[in-house]
Amino acid sequence: MIDTNIELLKGIANQLRIHSITSTTAAGSGHPTSCMSAADVVATLFFGHMRYDPKNPHYHNNDRFILSKGHAAPVLYAAWAETGLFPTSELLKLRKFSSDFEGHPTPRLPFVDVATGSLGQGLSIGVGMALAARLDSLDYNTYVLLGDGEIAEGAVWEAASLAGIYKLKNLIAVVDANRLGQSQATAFGHDIGVYRKRFEAFGWRVEDVDGHDIEEILEVLSGVGLNDQPLAIIARTYKGAGVSFVQDKDGWHGKPLNKDEAAKALAELQPSAISGIGVSIPSPSLLPAPNNSAPAGYPPLNYKPGDSVATREAYGNALARIGETDQRIVAMDGDTKNSTYSEKFMKKFPARFTECFIAEQCMVGVAVGFGVRGKVPFASTFAAFFTRTYDQIRVAGISQANLKLVGSHVGVSIGEDGPSQMGLEDLAMMRAITGGVVLYPSDAVSTEKLVEQMAQTKGICYLRTTRPKTPVIYRNDEPFPIGGAKVLRQNAGDKVTVIAAGITLVEAIKAADALKNEGIGITVIDAYSIKPLARDVIRAAAQKTNNLVVTVEDHYAEGGLGDTVAGELSADGIKVHKLAVTALPRSGKAEELLAHFGIDAAAIVKKVKSLS
Amino acid sequence: MIDTNIELLKGIANQLRIHSITSTTAAGSGHPTSCMSAADVVATLFFGHMRYDPKNPHYHNNDRFILSKGHAAPVLYAAWAETGLFPTSELLKLRKFSSDFEGHPTPRLPFVDVATGSLGQGLSIGVGMALAARLDSLDYNTYVLLGDGEIAEGAVWEAASLAGIYKLKNLIAVVDANRLGQSQATAFGHDIGVYRKRFEAFGWRVEDVDGHDIEEILEVLSGVGLNDQPLAIIARTYKGAGVSFVQDKDGWHGKPLNKDEAAKALAELQPSAISGIGVSIPSPSLLPAPNNSAPAGYPPLNYKPGDSVATREAYGNALARIGETDQRIVAMDGDTKNSTYSEKFMKKFPARFTECFIAEQCMVGVAVGFGVRGKVPFASTFAAFFTRTYDQIRVAGISQANLKLVGSHVGVSIGEDGPSQMGLEDLAMMRAITGGVVLYPSDAVSTEKLVEQMAQTKGICYLRTTRPKTPVIYRNDEPFPIGGAKVLRQNAGDKVTVIAAGITLVEAIKAADALKNEGIGITVIDAYSIKPLARDVIRAAAQKTNNLVVTVEDHYAEGGLGDTVAGELSADGIKVHKLAVTALPRSGKAEELLAHFGIDAAAIVKKVKSLS
Repeated sequence: MIDTNIELLKGIANQLRIHSITSTTAAGSGHPTSCMSAADVVATLFFGHMRYDPKNPHYHNNDRFILSKGHAAPVLYAAWAETGLFPTSELLKLRKFSSDFEGHPTPRLPFVDVATGSLGQGLSIGVGMALAARLDSLDYNTYVLLGDGEIAEGAVWEAASLAGIYKLKNLIAVVDANRLGQSQATAFGHDIGVYRKRFEAFGWRVEDVDGHDIEEILEVLSGVGLNDQPLAIIARTYKGAGVSFVQDKDGWHGKPLNKDEAAKALAELQPSAISGIGVSIPSPSLLPAPNNSAPAGYPPLNYKPGDSVATREAYGNALARIGETDQRIVAMDGDTKNSTYSEKFMKKFPARFTECFIAEQCMVGVAVGFGVRGKVPFASTFAAFFTRTYDQIRVAGISQANLKLVGSHVGVSIGEDGPSQMGLEDLAMMRAITGGVVLYPSDAVSTEKLVEQMAQTKGICYLRTTRPKTPVIYRNDEPFPIGGAKVLRQNAGDKVTVIAAGITLVEAIKAADALKNEGIGITVIDAYSIKPLARDVIRAAAQKTNNLVVTVEDHYAEGGLGDTVAGELSADGIKVHKLAVTALPRSGKAEELLAHFGIDAAAIVKKVKSLS
Repeated sequence: MIDTNIELLKGIANQLRIHSITSTTAAGSGHPTSCMSAADVVATLFFGHMRYDPKNPHYHNNDRFILSKGHAAPVLYAAWAETGLFPTSELLKLRKFSSDFEGHPTPRLPFVDVATGSLGQGLSIGVGMALAARLDSLDYNTYVLLGDGEIAEGAVWEAASLAGIYKLKNLIAVVDANRLGQSQATAFGHDIGVYRKRFEAFGWRVEDVDGHDIEEILEVLSGVGLNDQPLAIIARTYKGAGVSFVQDKDGWHGKPLNKDEAAKALAELQPSAISGIGVSIPSPSLLPAPNNSAPAGYPPLNYKPGDSVATREAYGNALARIGETDQRIVAMDGDTKNSTYSEKFMKKFPARFTECFIAEQCMVGVAVGFGVRGKVPFASTFAAFFTRTYDQIRVAGISQANLKLVGSHVGVSIGEDGPSQMGLEDLAMMRAITGGVVLYPSDAVSTEKLVEQMAQTKGICYLRTTRPKTPVIYRNDEPFPIGGAKVLRQNAGDKVTVIAAGITLVEAIKAADALKNEGIGITVIDAYSIKPLARDVIRAAAQKTNNLVVTVEDHYAEGGLGDTVAGELSADGIKVHKLAVTALPRSGKAEELLAHFGIDAAAIVKKVKSLS
């Protein structure tokens, strides 16, 4: 029985190799040799170990598989084809514009949870999924296949550390140690002991195997969940394994075989290849699906006009408030929870909070993992430190992930801590996430309402919060739809439309009052939704002020509010004069810095006068 | 003698504690307790171990010290004050707008090489400095002080791995394991064995010490350079050490003592405090300074009109060419050197090339480290993967570092590999680096000339290169100043000014030819310098086409070329119609993707017709 199984899995592995070769040769590009090293591991996982319903890849208690080494996409596609999910002929559409079998996996395919291809991201997402399983009392395991070159990425070690800390016995990393990177051999080649020591030091149980010996692979997989540690399997493999003239050869990374080479390779592989179609795959256990439905509503909020509350604190209030009725909400932070105020949620719902320590990349991956499992994850840290995770956010965009990010301490208004702690490029960065939403509230009410909107809106939403307290200016029942803006001051004869958000809205209102005393009227708009921008509201207001617009923002001049308004409306003839931070800031008092960089009320007054 | 020394160092440590307390109390903010845990280590390094000229912090063979845990800035400032570099009274200006003693260290201070404060970045910069010492045959050591919370950052482990691989015996990491993070205890507390195992697994020699026992610290420091490994010293410390009522207490992170508390603390510390002024500090050895002067010129380049060369390959050609006369140039890559073509430089100058493996954050840190030591570092990878290092680049901006970044494989024109490999947000990201330069050449000649400009321009310069080949359109002697643009087509009666760069310039020229055949003239501008933008050239051209501008870019619509032109010129009445990538791309042929996303010649023709 065991022997038959092993011969079968060997045969399927070679079938996967054949598909990997033929599909990349047909495409004229791709990474067949990176597939071939992993073929035995993939065949064993998919046809001899993992428990899942191959007809329903999204089933809630299926084991999860993340191909962190995303360039081996063809072997993943081949595995699912061999489960019978779709005809194997589809594989020949690899990398074609008309096909969802892209060069690297994306969730356009129903069996792919998250996009991969930027290395080092899969394990942290796996941590999120493993934590979600624990939260939902499900017994699926999460398997992550990494390359050996890939584990030079620090993000892998952030995730490894967290998995060790939280003793995620339902998380399994398999390292395909094929010895060869893209441009040269890896640093450690087949010195498997190095990888063993590293994972052990990070709290993992480690097994190493000959990655082409199905029996060995099966044996270590039979130990999954044995103790309370995550399991790392280091598979010693050969790039191009199975085909004599490419195996373990340099110069074959990311290179398809030509037609003659492919024919020669197939001649070596075909005699022992077996289709997986019809092979019985172990079923997941029957456990109830978690209730991840949206709530009927949220408890009301209760601010008084004249209250002074930092929007970062309002974020914490909001999350703790809506978390009561919205069981989907989970939160995570990177040891800044007492600054971002996510601790308000943690104190109320400790089981739904994950402390990720000072490892922001891992935090975003964990959030993506929770999102894939139906949760609504809110991840918070200083806005400046989200720059550390831009690649993770970028790829989450490709994953079309449900991800809520909250960056506090934006702009020079944080004051004394100085430039390293000031988020001054977060709007530029987050606007360029395709399909994303970027929000920038000015008071506590709008913050809370926007947090509700974020929870209710699928996709990547970013909220920018401010360190200093700002006055409550809206009523508790004011609606704040995504894509909206509020016209706060507007009178016939206004000279200029001033558009602001966050701390600069406070300054704009002061400026309007000061200018009014001098008989100069300005329109003031709260552009709380940076993306999508309320183009119509802004266009209409601007047209009433002779197309003259001043934008004022506590952000660098590049890619922020001013560029947004100009980029979206210059074609309509709107003339945007930007007030923004245009030089490297420094430590100082918030008001000194707002004045120095010309984004306070006085600067607005001066600018308006120069234009009118 | 030893004993006297130890008493002296103990006294200086307490003096540093006093300064840390008084300066933060005066500022009303800051992190005194994070300084106090490190005070004994810092006192020992600065007054009992490191070799440097305290009067000349930039001396070429001084030992280097990087305060990676930048929030302990006051203890660093105190140490330099106590060397006599400046009056200790200056310390009371901490965090004031008028002072360079910022909340976190920046190189506005002569003794600070690099800004810190975003955790986890110091060690990779230290790797760069240590490699620079080796290249320059200097015997200075580089010391990096990290926090224990900080080493959750994956970037630390990227650097640790590379230091181990390159056996950097001149690099010493000291971990101030004070057990308490910002919002809670660290994951491992005083379980020093965890840190030991981790550093050992990453190839380091490890010593652990009582971080408040000067004798122990001195003893392990005496072993610096003993074998061929980098040395990690894990110092078991207490946050707030030295003052009974704050030591090892939760809730004291980032919190100054009030005046009464400070007085009470000083009463505990003062009896045993000793000034360091006058203490003799070991001198660095006398070794010749490296020649880091700019060359008189560069060898000529030699393309023929009609040649077809990818700009990424022209980058490799350029670096190999100018590297001949410019000895300052060093290069590094993240295992993509056969795609970015940095391997052309490596093959010619192997000693000046550093393979950083797949660890982009570390690569940027290494480059910053080389830059600080007078080199001109060029770091390359796929543009998409620089998103992984945005925090490092951001902080390099605060460091005003001399850093050259080259991102290849931009936009949908990479084709089949799909979105995870496409750089589509790099312009947005890099434009928001304060003081930075962003370049985007279209042909081989302009690429090579811009690489020369990058080498000659101090600061952060980013070059965006394209995967497919593009025709050579410029003569070898054409100048390409930073901040310039080329008007390639312009005739009286032109209807629209089309602004493009990179692959879309090729499309814009095709569009101009097609439109000309239909009797429609357009002005075509090569905006190779995205930042600074050639505002005058563009404004003048646009004004001749009734202010009508079409921008076309292989980048997301947010923060790229179109937003740049609109953001800089809408106030002048320029109307910008953007053609850009406005949805999530997918795999396919380059030409299919350019057409699908409406940024090819046909799309330009259509847009121009709709406007004219």
